[in-house]
Amino acid sequence: MKTELNPDISQALSAIAGREFGNVFLVACGGSLSIMHPGKYFLDRHSKVLNSDVYNADEFIARSPQKLDDKALVILCSQTGTTKETARAAEFARAKGAATIAMTLDSASPLANAAENVVNYQAFYTTGVPIDAAESNYGVLYMLLAGLVKQTDGIDVVPSLLKSLSNLQPAIDKAHDVFAPLFEDYAPRLAKKDVIYTLASGANYGAAYSFSICVLMEMQWINSQAIHANEYFHGPFEVTDKDASFIVMVGLDETRRLEERARDFALRFGSEDNVMVLDAEKLDLTGIDDAFRGYLVPLVFFDTLWRFAYKIADLRGQPMLEGRRYMKKISDY
Amino acid sequence: MKTELNPDISQALSAIAGREFGNVFLVACGGSLSIMHPGKYFLDRHSKVLNSDVYNADEFIARSPQKLDDKALVILCSQTGTTKETARAAEFARAKGAATIAMTLDSASPLANAAENVVNYQAFYTTGVPIDAAESNYGVLYMLLAGLVKQTDGIDVVPSLLKSLSNLQPAIDKAHDVFAPLFEDYAPRLAKKDVIYTLASGANYGAAYSFSICVLMEMQWINSQAIHANEYFHGPFEVTDKDASFIVMVGLDETRRLEERARDFALRFGSEDNVMVLDAEKLDLTGIDDAFRGYLVPLVFFDTLWRFAYKIADLRGQPMLEGRRYMKKISDY
Repeated sequence: MKTELNPDISQALSAIAGREFGNVFLVACGGSLSIMHPGKYFLDRHSKVLNSDVYNADEFIARSPQKLDDKALVILCSQTGTTKETARAAEFARAKGAATIAMTLDSASPLANAAENVVNYQAFYTTGVPIDAAESNYGVLYMLLAGLVKQTDGIDVVPSLLKSLSNLQPAIDKAHDVFAPLFEDYAPRLAKKDVIYTLASGANYGAAYSFSICVLMEMQWINSQAIHANEYFHGPFEVTDKDASFIVMVGLDETRRLEERARDFALRFGSEDNVMVLDAEKLDLTGIDDAFRGYLVPLVFFDTLWRFAYKIADLRGQPMLEGRRYMKKISDY
Repeated sequence: MKTELNPDISQALSAIAGREFGNVFLVACGGSLSIMHPGKYFLDRHSKVLNSDVYNADEFIARSPQKLDDKALVILCSQTGTTKETARAAEFARAKGAATIAMTLDSASPLANAAENVVNYQAFYTTGVPIDAAESNYGVLYMLLAGLVKQTDGIDVVPSLLKSLSNLQPAIDKAHDVFAPLFEDYAPRLAKKDVIYTLASGANYGAAYSFSICVLMEMQWINSQAIHANEYFHGPFEVTDKDASFIVMVGLDETRRLEERARDFALRFGSEDNVMVLDAEKLDLTGIDDAFRGYLVPLVFFDTLWRFAYKIADLRGQPMLEGRRYMKKISDY
């Protein structure tokens, strides 16, 4: 059972404890950017003090918000720490007087060197070594933000978060079994599709975004888009027909009704054969406090969906990480 | 030549002049939400005082940010004023003590009735009557925000904006001629595609989003996604091949280099036949101040792209507004 924040998180929080922040900028690219969406969701719902923004790292630099000054905290994330835009964003933020915290696997990376404070996390799919989901990018970001809100707002949800994170990995392990028959059923049909949309809202939106752009598009060259569950009804739903494919995330946060509505529509005008619904109500989340279920469900969805992705990859005969043609294959762009 | 803000904008600004705001929430759905992205871009770059957030209206209600209180200003937009989520968001915001300004075509609509202040704009594609782009949703939002920043930050860019808006419609009229050969060239090829992506960043992102979801998806049932020009390199670019179709917006704001990079990659690994580039440097923007060119270019892109959409619609034999199967056709969802 986790009872304390990770030492490097506590150290980063101590280092910035004397400063009064008005703004938190959550800055990264691609998959690392995706976790920032639920990060902002958490801050929006927990802090009366902090404003937060989620920016792609290069957009952040070019946009150069007026609010980026010594009253700003910039949290950046890059798995390898070598994402150039994100490392540059850290330098840019420091030059503006902002406090910086880098999240990365590698404390000796360019991003880690560029930021004042470094917080490590773990990733299974990079190292191949099983990890505890509490120590993943999501888990570490939530710990960092919960610790921050304790400092800025005096609201202490850290014990509840730590308890919940301690029970996350067992919940994920069980979720693999819960979703296995669903994945088995849908993989053969969805593997043949040229377009697969994900649908989600609230804390789940980032996981949908990441699955669309980093898995379906990047590794399987399947056209995809994460459609916000309510935005769906304001244009995108017109592509829904019996052949259209959707992966719908129905989570447990305050926006669940948005996801339910999108699910119902997709099932009604699409075909049940092509609309795969991940419903968090089917999961055993024992030990995860109600207050954190909505925030931790996207980790469960994203982790379990990797198995679905590998199934699709097998059926398509296109390997996952090795299947890229540009990323880490060419460098002159 | 416009020399003063529209009377209803001045009136709304006067009505809130006594209040001290920390946060601006920009709230709408679909196409009306798309204009809020450049709105936030403008605030990010011009205000030291105001924080701003862009939310889908139903997400906004469900999320219920802690910052939504009597120090918040909520700007909402719905063309007809009948978008249920947006009207509810106005009620929700008022109940939280926030100030509310509704942008709509119809001052007697549910949204107009729900908000304290109402600001009108004009839309050609709804009324069929030619309008001055200065009075469009974008134009009115910029006027409102420039007036707001003058009140909160004491920075007066209103005269420059008004002068620039006065010269916008002639610039759009000329842009139609500039882009006509491009559209003529690409329409026959893109009309045959099942998937067309838009690529943009900064102030253009909203126009790309709107063209993707409200035109390509909603009216032509073409699969689409607005990909942020830098996010493209962190996953989505892997779908690029000689058949992949992109509409790339290359504008004149601070993020132009992001769009140029995406354009260059798409042209290099895609086919010039399927990558249509709208470059604002080709436009005659006489009378639009340099400081506002980046903000007004998305209006030029979006307006001209409508003609491209109608060309595609003709070639596909699928009408535009009449082509919807769900929106305004069924109501029980």
